[in-house]
Amino acid sequence: MNNHNAKPENNDLRIEGRHSVLEAFRAGRLIERLYVQKGLSDGPILSIIKEAKKTGTVLDFVPKERLDHMSETARHQGVIALLSAFHYSEIEDIFLLAEKKGTAPFIFLLDGIEDPHNLGAIIRTANLAGAHGVIIPKRRAVGLTATVVKASAGAVHYTPVVRATNLVNTIEELKEKGLWFVCADMEGELMYRNNLSGPIGLVIGNEGNGVSRLVREHCDLTAAIPMNGDIDSLNASVAAGILAYEIVRQRLLE
Amino acid sequence: MNNHNAKPENNDLRIEGRHSVLEAFRAGRLIERLYVQKGLSDGPILSIIKEAKKTGTVLDFVPKERLDHMSETARHQGVIALLSAFHYSEIEDIFLLAEKKGTAPFIFLLDGIEDPHNLGAIIRTANLAGAHGVIIPKRRAVGLTATVVKASAGAVHYTPVVRATNLVNTIEELKEKGLWFVCADMEGELMYRNNLSGPIGLVIGNEGNGVSRLVREHCDLTAAIPMNGDIDSLNASVAAGILAYEIVRQRLLE
Repeated sequence: MNNHNAKPENNDLRIEGRHSVLEAFRAGRLIERLYVQKGLSDGPILSIIKEAKKTGTVLDFVPKERLDHMSETARHQGVIALLSAFHYSEIEDIFLLAEKKGTAPFIFLLDGIEDPHNLGAIIRTANLAGAHGVIIPKRRAVGLTATVVKASAGAVHYTPVVRATNLVNTIEELKEKGLWFVCADMEGELMYRNNLSGPIGLVIGNEGNGVSRLVREHCDLTAAIPMNGDIDSLNASVAAGILAYEIVRQRLLE
Repeated sequence: MNNHNAKPENNDLRIEGRHSVLEAFRAGRLIERLYVQKGLSDGPILSIIKEAKKTGTVLDFVPKERLDHMSETARHQGVIALLSAFHYSEIEDIFLLAEKKGTAPFIFLLDGIEDPHNLGAIIRTANLAGAHGVIIPKRRAVGLTATVVKASAGAVHYTPVVRATNLVNTIEELKEKGLWFVCADMEGELMYRNNLSGPIGLVIGNEGNGVSRLVREHCDLTAAIPMNGDIDSLNASVAAGILAYEIVRQRLLE
């Protein structure tokens, strides 16, 4: 697994067993992550792996002991699928919402948030800051698990969450639609000194590593929160909130 | 138990057994919470309960099975004490720090934060916002457990955390020292419209219920974060961050 925080929690939805998992794929259920027992390669398992690849599902090959431990039914037959607790939206949904609200597009782009409580809190903040959507990467990040949905305090029902295969491509695509991208960067320009009005994408990095180099290089601006203390960094969801509300403040001044 | 979030986690420090617990009390170790087996009332147990009451330790009477489950030594003899993972400071330490930094006192006062990750994130924010201390209530709130210390990302080493027996008394005491208190209140005055410069106490409420009525009534100002969304409230640590940084912004303007 890429991400130790993305491990299934007790309240996540899961489907176990070959028949059930294959049916879920065929019914078009969105599967967040698929765990397959290492070394299995019989027909049904290969069909399931094929479906997973077709739908771009994140696939993990794990030892049998791991599946036994995860299993709630004790009859996993070598496969456990972790369902998304909520559906994802498309980029178009974000622009439709901005249009409906009559405000310039305001999007959060999260470069690898791993902690489900942070992701939930950020979606919650996006909703209340009046942002029109949240974009997360498909890999190396937590998705819309049940824990995230709960931590969002209902915000996922209103604020579109979009999964992107490649964040850099998404940024370029959105730039063509007129968005400016500001990257949270502790070494950057003090946030008050940036003009953050107009159509904007706020880029927040991973809890430990911040925004990745490639994504940062595709941003137009950098914004730093003033640091008057002794430690290195704020919690990622708190930093996202402070930066988002600097955007809110500048929008109110217009 | 008042607080389901304050349950001991694996990484919290605990002492088990009658002799060890009594010694810990007598040595003046700060005990966060004491678990005593229901129905026991022999001499040593009564001595321990007496020490707990004398020091204002939160006391829980629980079934033997619960202690068995919590025990790491399997020899708890009916008592397990949960130690604070970190020491608390005194109000004076906060003022000393403000004096040392040469800035007007800036204090966070938390009215019943229950989630250890929120408390940790808030102490982290307090440190980086340049606040001089965090005050928490002794009861109905999470204390400095190991989880909190970890979530604070080292901030507890720099920012004094003080426990207050009665928040209202503490507010009155601090008002006499020249502080103004601003209460986070979604129904309050828009935060930008308040003058938040000068010696200030920022009051943040409980995750579910906000600031309690009595504490709110003792505040001088209310401050609301603009809400442009569909849901009710921000995560408590995010809200604390946004309000704290409005104070930071106003201080920078001076």
